[in-house]
Amino acid sequence: MAEKKPEQLLDEASAWWTTGIVDIHPGKIAMRGYPVEELIGKVGFPDMVYLMLRGELPERAQAELLEAAMVASVDHGPHAPSIAVSRMAVSCGLPVNGAMASAINVLDDVHGGAGQQCMELFREIAAEAGEGDPAPAAAAVLARWREAGTKFIPGFGHRFHPLDPRTPRLFALVDAAQKAGVVSGRYARIGRAVEASLARGRARPVPMNVDGVTAVIYSELGFEPELGRGIFILARAVGILAHAWEEKQQGVRIKGPMPRDIPYRYNGKARRAVPDRRSP
Amino acid sequence: MAEKKPEQLLDEASAWWTTGIVDIHPGKIAMRGYPVEELIGKVGFPDMVYLMLRGELPERAQAELLEAAMVASVDHGPHAPSIAVSRMAVSCGLPVNGAMASAINVLDDVHGGAGQQCMELFREIAAEAGEGDPAPAAAAVLARWREAGTKFIPGFGHRFHPLDPRTPRLFALVDAAQKAGVVSGRYARIGRAVEASLARGRARPVPMNVDGVTAVIYSELGFEPELGRGIFILARAVGILAHAWEEKQQGVRIKGPMPRDIPYRYNGKARRAVPDRRSP
Amino acid sequence: MAEKKPEQLLDEASAWWTTGIVDIHPGKIAMRGYPVEELIGKVGFPDMVYLMLRGELPERAQAELLEAAMVASVDHGPHAPSIAVSRMAVSCGLPVNGAMASAINVLDDVHGGAGQQCMELFREIAAEAGEGDPAPAAAAVLARWREAGTKFIPGFGHRFHPLDPRTPRLFALVDAAQKAGVVSGRYARIGRAVEASLARGRARPVPMNVDGVTAVIYSELGFEPELGRGIFILARAVGILAHAWEEKQQGVRIKGPMPRDIPYRYNGKARRAVPDRRSP
Amino acid sequence: MAEKKPEQLLDEASAWWTTGIVDIHPGKIAMRGYPVEELIGKVGFPDMVYLMLRGELPERAQAELLEAAMVASVDHGPHAPSIAVSRMAVSCGLPVNGAMASAINVLDDVHGGAGQQCMELFREIAAEAGEGDPAPAAAAVLARWREAGTKFIPGFGHRFHPLDPRTPRLFALVDAAQKAGVVSGRYARIGRAVEASLARGRARPVPMNVDGVTAVIYSELGFEPELGRGIFILARAVGILAHAWEEKQQGVRIKGPMPRDIPYRYNGKARRAVPDRRSP
Repeated sequence: MAEKKPEQLLDEASAWWTTGIVDIHPGKIAMRGYPVEELIGKVGFPDMVYLMLRGELPERAQAELLEAAMVASVDHGPHAPSIAVSRMAVSCGLPVNGAMASAINVLDDVHGGAGQQCMELFREIAAEAGEGDPAPAAAAVLARWREAGTKFIPGFGHRFHPLDPRTPRLFALVDAAQKAGVVSGRYARIGRAVEASLARGRARPVPMNVDGVTAVIYSELGFEPELGRGIFILARAVGILAHAWEEKQQGVRIKGPMPRDIPYRYNGKARRAVPDRRSP
Repeated sequence: MAEKKPEQLLDEASAWWTTGIVDIHPGKIAMRGYPVEELIGKVGFPDMVYLMLRGELPERAQAELLEAAMVASVDHGPHAPSIAVSRMAVSCGLPVNGAMASAINVLDDVHGGAGQQCMELFREIAAEAGEGDPAPAAAAVLARWREAGTKFIPGFGHRFHPLDPRTPRLFALVDAAQKAGVVSGRYARIGRAVEASLARGRARPVPMNVDGVTAVIYSELGFEPELGRGIFILARAVGILAHAWEEKQQGVRIKGPMPRDIPYRYNGKARRAVPDRRSP
Repeated sequence: MAEKKPEQLLDEASAWWTTGIVDIHPGKIAMRGYPVEELIGKVGFPDMVYLMLRGELPERAQAELLEAAMVASVDHGPHAPSIAVSRMAVSCGLPVNGAMASAINVLDDVHGGAGQQCMELFREIAAEAGEGDPAPAAAAVLARWREAGTKFIPGFGHRFHPLDPRTPRLFALVDAAQKAGVVSGRYARIGRAVEASLARGRARPVPMNVDGVTAVIYSELGFEPELGRGIFILARAVGILAHAWEEKQQGVRIKGPMPRDIPYRYNGKARRAVPDRRSP
Repeated sequence: MAEKKPEQLLDEASAWWTTGIVDIHPGKIAMRGYPVEELIGKVGFPDMVYLMLRGELPERAQAELLEAAMVASVDHGPHAPSIAVSRMAVSCGLPVNGAMASAINVLDDVHGGAGQQCMELFREIAAEAGEGDPAPAAAAVLARWREAGTKFIPGFGHRFHPLDPRTPRLFALVDAAQKAGVVSGRYARIGRAVEASLARGRARPVPMNVDGVTAVIYSELGFEPELGRGIFILARAVGILAHAWEEKQQGVRIKGPMPRDIPYRYNGKARRAVPDRRSP
């Protein structure tokens, strides 16, 4: 260490924080090469999401598909832990940044990760199917996932909605985009193949939910699976903020999961005496 | 407590989680009364932000102004603690939800609150000026804030940019919106009055920065100050996600603020012996 | 900027991260000057808390008083939002660090800040009373706080416990420490003066709760008010972790505040049609 | 759903929040059956950690071993992202709860998870070795982990310390505890077998670090691996709080990773013009 010159150390420090996203100098800001003052008013917010995550601006029809998926994902009510956490956080005194942080944090693998997992499923099927009919690959991959212990196929079925009202509308937009040549339709076919495979031999189908159809959209647009989770978070952040704000207007202090009069159940040890652990 | 009937307790439990934002039943989801399947593809993402936070859809020109402000705010580089935290978090193993949570959390009063504080400043001036010329009110309110100990007037001046490149472009959009009758221009006038008041008697002006001009926009659109912070977070979340993702591709493990070879400075006690605090 | 030599920049970088807490070199770690290998096994965990926050090791009796306050604060059940958030977070897939982060975050001014606020109250009374009888100062300061809009005097009264079972036991330890000359008893007198002042003219007293008596202890030990909040968090973190772990064993997925069968109440707009905001 | 009686729904709500950790009634609080007022002053903080996580109080010597491991883990300086995040968070305006939340969140798999992973390694070796010599099992399991792609064996080697000063002292305490019959020594033997296996055929050994030796301790005490991470967080929370507090005294505003004069490196696209994405 001692032999390095100060310039070398400085260079290491500078390289330690290297980015290709944003370039800033006094009076100048550019994202992915585009001066910010030229982006403002010329591109939409979904364009910026795409540009920042992918490095290039989307075509207009691509941005519209992305935007539809984001619009569909902003909220699903206070039974969702993320929304409940946001509201509870505000009642504890947090400003909106803190409430959003605690809430977004819980959008993890189980609540918030289904879209990403569904994209991974689609990708595995795509790799196996190649350019051919995805149906056999879908059946094979689903069988493997089930053997590996997967109980819920991510993106399909919903514990609350028999049919998710967001799915048909979003799927219609995907189909229109395919006809217009905006997307290839490969992942739409894969999604339908999974749905068909899941329905086989069951009395009640397991229809694609919002995580599944947005996974189709993000996959068609070429996003990596983890970015599917990221974009979902950008969208759900709107609902998280709206509920934080509404809760603040309601003015409850220290809001637990249930009002105090409704007790929780204790199933532990009965009262007992404490042995002294401090005297020698 | 004991006298309440089960139905009453249930009713309390249900009322404890009351919302006017989203209504969900099996197969049905509506935001602010609008069925989600009708919103998808018909309204843009900024429209949804406005609808969720305000209860009604914006006019198209209002949504465009909001969108321009959001586009301007997505990123300001890894010298910003929020962006740095996001990247460091990923290098510690967090997925994007965790990185975004830790990062958004730090968008607090000092780093992320300037827009909200500027909106509060504008509102105080508006209350004092009424419908008249805001210049005297601006001078008076600024004098009060300074007497109360405010060192940095939020929304004005920038420690890095002599002139913030986002300001003139956004202000031009506000002026155009005023000419088109989309906004009243009241807060644009107040913003300019503050700028003029700050420049008086100084060699170098203290020009409005992005927090100031977005505060003008959010105020013109009728948002409450705390929602100014909230919308900023929705926008900056895009940059936070993009940097998290880029950092993940770079693959550094356990990224501290500086590389290990560049030491920090220790200015505490010299080495000393420990007295035994455990033996009696 | 351009004129600075690399050495100067490096020196600035190093100074930017200056600490008097911990000094680390290859093979050497010292906290506040004490080599870590000498601390291990010789001092207790509460001693380390004190050392890290104050710069010096406590006397044994001081550490015991601090430890008693921390033991008293580890948990107050899942009706507390912090505990509920921890459990909900785990059910969303977060590991313990994420659950603890989301939960600790909500220990803000309203839920977690009462101890700090009570220490600030005591300090204000101490400043006014000087070395004399704190009763008149307590009455005067309480009157001022109420005039300023304070509805709940922090550290006194409890919405659940008529008498907080932690208070008498902790207060007995404070009194014993005072008799032993470990603490001065000044803040114990102030705490009692506040309690007496609050009881005056009421049918039902407003007894000191755990936030109040731990505020007495942390004040007697010389901690700054914000550190009172910090130490409370260190203690409550134990309960937060224990509940996260228990929830994980229970295995519920996506745990909202109430089970799905118990609905929330929607009080917003009735269903309505969406105007098209996208066509020009 | 409609057929359930209100009492049934209430019962479900209560069961939804079931815990065996803490039982609370007006005027009564008990942890794991022990009335809190009897715990206060009689048991130490590490005893409470053990009680809350395990359900029973530890023997005194067990608590001391746990305490030594926790004392060793409180801090490792601002080059650690968790400590840096805490300090940056405070400079953004967060109170200590927020700073601790953002910081604890990053104690994930890569920075904070090594102890847990090391406990999992030890457990795998223990399962394979049974009661016999752990050396062959250690070699076999290490070979499997390396084949599976593990580059860094968790708990061994340190990128900064040639020999971690915390290890020999903690290991001496483990050995003493074994001689006293407090622990079996099984995991100490496993840890040494791993160290020996790693050293074989290398010029420079890969000695056990603090994560390794605390993994030995927590395993000897019977903790589950994920609780090893949890206890580490309880300990590191002290350093995180201490650095947050010190940073607050220093008063820097908006502290990025490096001071502004030291630039980051931009390696993205050169400036380019923006195509218009908004006009039809």
